[in-house]
Amino acid sequence: MSATKKIIRVGLIGAGRMGSFHATSLAQRVPGAVLAAVADPVPGAAQRLAEKLGVERFYSEPQAMLDSPDIDAVVIVSPARTHAELVVAAARAGKHVFCEKPMAVTLEEADRAIAAAREAGVVLQVGFNRRFASGFAAALAEIKAGKIGTPQLLRSLTRDPAPLRDPTPIPPWTIYLETLIHDFDTLLHCNPGAKPVEVYAIADALVRPDFKDKGLLDTSVVTIRFDNGAIAIAEANFQAVYGYDVRGEVFGSNGMLQIGNINVNNAVRYTAEGISIDTSRQDTDLLADAYIAELTEFVRCAATGETPRATGEDARNALAIALACIASVQQNLPVKL
Amino acid sequence: MSATKKIIRVGLIGAGRMGSFHATSLAQRVPGAVLAAVADPVPGAAQRLAEKLGVERFYSEPQAMLDSPDIDAVVIVSPARTHAELVVAAARAGKHVFCEKPMAVTLEEADRAIAAAREAGVVLQVGFNRRFASGFAAALAEIKAGKIGTPQLLRSLTRDPAPLRDPTPIPPWTIYLETLIHDFDTLLHCNPGAKPVEVYAIADALVRPDFKDKGLLDTSVVTIRFDNGAIAIAEANFQAVYGYDVRGEVFGSNGMLQIGNINVNNAVRYTAEGISIDTSRQDTDLLADAYIAELTEFVRCAATGETPRATGEDARNALAIALACIASVQQNLPVKL
Amino acid sequence: MSATKKIIRVGLIGAGRMGSFHATSLAQRVPGAVLAAVADPVPGAAQRLAEKLGVERFYSEPQAMLDSPDIDAVVIVSPARTHAELVVAAARAGKHVFCEKPMAVTLEEADRAIAAAREAGVVLQVGFNRRFASGFAAALAEIKAGKIGTPQLLRSLTRDPAPLRDPTPIPPWTIYLETLIHDFDTLLHCNPGAKPVEVYAIADALVRPDFKDKGLLDTSVVTIRFDNGAIAIAEANFQAVYGYDVRGEVFGSNGMLQIGNINVNNAVRYTAEGISIDTSRQDTDLLADAYIAELTEFVRCAATGETPRATGEDARNALAIALACIASVQQNLPVKL
Amino acid sequence: MSATKKIIRVGLIGAGRMGSFHATSLAQRVPGAVLAAVADPVPGAAQRLAEKLGVERFYSEPQAMLDSPDIDAVVIVSPARTHAELVVAAARAGKHVFCEKPMAVTLEEADRAIAAAREAGVVLQVGFNRRFASGFAAALAEIKAGKIGTPQLLRSLTRDPAPLRDPTPIPPWTIYLETLIHDFDTLLHCNPGAKPVEVYAIADALVRPDFKDKGLLDTSVVTIRFDNGAIAIAEANFQAVYGYDVRGEVFGSNGMLQIGNINVNNAVRYTAEGISIDTSRQDTDLLADAYIAELTEFVRCAATGETPRATGEDARNALAIALACIASVQQNLPVKL
Repeated sequence: MSATKKIIRVGLIGAGRMGSFHATSLAQRVPGAVLAAVADPVPGAAQRLAEKLGVERFYSEPQAMLDSPDIDAVVIVSPARTHAELVVAAARAGKHVFCEKPMAVTLEEADRAIAAAREAGVVLQVGFNRRFASGFAAALAEIKAGKIGTPQLLRSLTRDPAPLRDPTPIPPWTIYLETLIHDFDTLLHCNPGAKPVEVYAIADALVRPDFKDKGLLDTSVVTIRFDNGAIAIAEANFQAVYGYDVRGEVFGSNGMLQIGNINVNNAVRYTAEGISIDTSRQDTDLLADAYIAELTEFVRCAATGETPRATGEDARNALAIALACIASVQQNLPVKL
Repeated sequence: MSATKKIIRVGLIGAGRMGSFHATSLAQRVPGAVLAAVADPVPGAAQRLAEKLGVERFYSEPQAMLDSPDIDAVVIVSPARTHAELVVAAARAGKHVFCEKPMAVTLEEADRAIAAAREAGVVLQVGFNRRFASGFAAALAEIKAGKIGTPQLLRSLTRDPAPLRDPTPIPPWTIYLETLIHDFDTLLHCNPGAKPVEVYAIADALVRPDFKDKGLLDTSVVTIRFDNGAIAIAEANFQAVYGYDVRGEVFGSNGMLQIGNINVNNAVRYTAEGISIDTSRQDTDLLADAYIAELTEFVRCAATGETPRATGEDARNALAIALACIASVQQNLPVKL
Repeated sequence: MSATKKIIRVGLIGAGRMGSFHATSLAQRVPGAVLAAVADPVPGAAQRLAEKLGVERFYSEPQAMLDSPDIDAVVIVSPARTHAELVVAAARAGKHVFCEKPMAVTLEEADRAIAAAREAGVVLQVGFNRRFASGFAAALAEIKAGKIGTPQLLRSLTRDPAPLRDPTPIPPWTIYLETLIHDFDTLLHCNPGAKPVEVYAIADALVRPDFKDKGLLDTSVVTIRFDNGAIAIAEANFQAVYGYDVRGEVFGSNGMLQIGNINVNNAVRYTAEGISIDTSRQDTDLLADAYIAELTEFVRCAATGETPRATGEDARNALAIALACIASVQQNLPVKL
Repeated sequence: MSATKKIIRVGLIGAGRMGSFHATSLAQRVPGAVLAAVADPVPGAAQRLAEKLGVERFYSEPQAMLDSPDIDAVVIVSPARTHAELVVAAARAGKHVFCEKPMAVTLEEADRAIAAAREAGVVLQVGFNRRFASGFAAALAEIKAGKIGTPQLLRSLTRDPAPLRDPTPIPPWTIYLETLIHDFDTLLHCNPGAKPVEVYAIADALVRPDFKDKGLLDTSVVTIRFDNGAIAIAEANFQAVYGYDVRGEVFGSNGMLQIGNINVNNAVRYTAEGISIDTSRQDTDLLADAYIAELTEFVRCAATGETPRATGEDARNALAIALACIASVQQNLPVKL
């Protein structure tokens, strides 16, 4: 960061759990950023978060913040179904946009968001934070460099830490649109240049079978065929008693990469009960550095105009797989993309 | 082994690579066994193996060995398609039978083999050696004891070491009938009491695409749904450049077990090139102890009449999945069992 | 950080490799800090660093910076033999002080530095960064909580990454005063409440025997006896071809803790050459988070008046062991403390 | 083993815990061996073991067994202080000798044993079983091949599993003569061609301080200087609550080897309590394969006249370090060898 580096003034939309987490990062840990304002329609939410972080401005109406000329960029952490519309509004207001995943829940929405950012000439980055985790980033670089040859078998999984929070407010198909969408992105970028051609998905409510008739699917296995022959598996489950578990494996003609371990420090304990390590009990813990890194990249791209490593197109590509999964579950058949 | 313990006189059928390996174990490392005879129709094969091991008798015709009254038990290591017939013949001759997997390649054959052993009152054990590998055995015991709750997601994989041998003589569907059949057995016994209800299989020739039109499938991913909701994945590939790779993972409501590592000793090397360990370059190396253990159990069961842990019924259950995979690949559809 | 939180204005002394690293952290990554000025007597060094980081003020004379009333705290990263004097000067100027290790090279110096900070009522923190590495911090918490019982055997080691830089400017006894002093601190705080009573040290020039007659000792093993019976080993070597290696092991009556691994991401690579991971090629890489964490704690303590976890007394205690090591090597005898 | 291979008829002396273990191996798991007789002066002990294993002959007097012409080789597993005398007697009787460690407790005894075997032209192997553990063997091969350059820092440790058995019958200095002697042998053969020149040992009774005045030392750290500059550490403790722990580390100019892990199978368990593996609760468990391998090598050497990899000279070299440790503890000084 040079002496003349532009400071990016960021407005954040969404003061919930993840919104508060990103806001704290922006206020304290992201070089080159100032958290200038917070917006949330929930009464009092924006004000509470703003005061906690020493931010002077807060809004109950995101558009009011978007209209403010001294905001350079926005970070969208609102509910998933509001994302695309907010991306479009922010882009039209000339703000660079970081949007949490999923950027959209239909392909039409995704196309509109991408087009709006392109037309406005603003940066559009999507919250695929795993790309910024050191292990995933190192693995991707090796795959792109051809170190393991042509990918043949891939695996990516997400298991959320226990206990599963109250599933009442979880919208249908969340497991694909909000959880496995991370894995789809990982699988896509770990098989560079290849296109998914067919998807087969199985899902069930194994953690909370009592919520199955309300549409909750908490466990899924997805098989994806790519046009280069590679076969990928994505797995998700909403409750791992041992902690947050995010891993990947890419097997190719010249080697394999395994990514992700679930210990949160590098101490190993040996007692009469055996050997143990500490695991992560929340997502923001295991991937803490990745969350900072993605925002740091966003702020840098907003300042320089560079293209971030996770774009609107990436969001659309992962979404296409998620939507195919939904169709596959509904039909219990493989679905072509 | 008490002073009065019965010594089991074993005849072995099949003097190829695995047959020679098992013969050496029986001659030198399996307590309570005497390798009494070897049979193989390939000219000179039985004699060469017999002489190498100091075994006095050898046969070019298995039936002649089966007719010999001083043979207590036979170990069948002939080509897969001859197994069931030999099991029936051995059982009818009153010999206890250890048969390499697959015990049969059709369900009718499997039923005949099981019936023959039952009628003859002989032990029938199948070569699912992973059950005897210490890690798999320990994991299975924990699963049966309920330590990880109800299985929800399972994975079992087999990757053969490089280089893939000449694929010319590999019969079609070998990947299911001879390779993944191990994984199917592992998945079945790691989800105790549950029945597979649907199978979806994808296969391709990624290692040797030039052999695809000859029917070679060298890479496959299989999804299996169980009646308790659990979803299992089986994966295979015929050429892992880093060595023989056999692993499992069972995720349940109360925890997860991971099974299998691929280092063949417990030394770790740190050099300017990084950190490295030694991997297995052949199957008989990584699971060496398991091969001895399964034969030791067979000899013990032959002496005592106990039921071995891998039976003809187990062979049939795994075969049913393999056959469903073949149908699934042919139709590119999920197939009900 | 609340809206009213005090921002700490930090002046940094020493614009060398580590000074530049800490300066960058202070400028960009330490919440609550502003890097207000840089001082270094080397012509041009302070200016270059200041300009690179967008810092307006720079000094060739540290005292001039200390005289500046708008500096709240100083971070001392100058050569080791200047530390104690600078600590005293900074404390007398009323600045909170963070001093890189060793804080002093004689016990008298250490006492003067401690006394100066006490009299001035300023925070005095020493750069024992390992205490801030997540694994070491977790282990220490467990030891203090009695989880592994009474420590009986301890080990701490430091191996610097290859290649060893030009040893010409390395002062005699650096291996104790600047390298193993980290390990002595680790061992002291991993055996809480116990006092070292006897030290035996062996040292040699094995990496660069050609520099032995110039006083370079690049390899050492130290045995420390504590008054609770525990026996500790500290090891150092100036050139590990496989990367920077910092580890600890504490064995107690109820268990053991192992601390530290040397991979810098969580990806594991499997190729025909074996299995490998990436190691750290410089100290600021492996312990990157710990360096930020120690400065973050310093800034927080400067703002709140809290006592940091690594104090001047800790520096003195570790130094006492280092000095005993020097005596032990000179006499080739155990030396009482 | 060829058809004409000589079968070695082994007589075993000592029917205690380890004697029974070796006897079982010889009777059931060592190719080419027949356990022909068992001797033990404890009334009934030899007979009980012989009957359990189906061995026809048993003796209360070892010499009677040694006089028997149809015994080819003896395995000595009696109390340590009887070893050397029995080696001499066996050699004079023309028997090949495998002797548990320590082969002798004075250098004079060691020399007599070595001379007796040499004069009789019999094989003399000592029970340094770690050399036969796959990890240690692989590491030694790499060191000898120069893969890690010149050794500079070495470590070998032994921690016995909990609980410490009744220390009443443990003779003084057992920790050096019977426990650390394994580590001394490991360190000697991991620094090939180098000679130990100085030893410094610290010991205490930390596990059972109430037995300290009876001469029990249950914890020790030993520093060994070699003539090539390498510095080695040996550590022992009689009670590790987490299981039997045997490890080594060899750091050289071109790399490091770490040897030994303490899990007894390859399953890893993840539960709400963390991640855990199973450890070994007795020595014969962790190194089970090594015990078989050393006896297999002995029987092979007895048949072929080859020199085993752990000889009487190796026993003497390790004993010299053990005796220097005793002197060092008595004087609390470094002791030259």
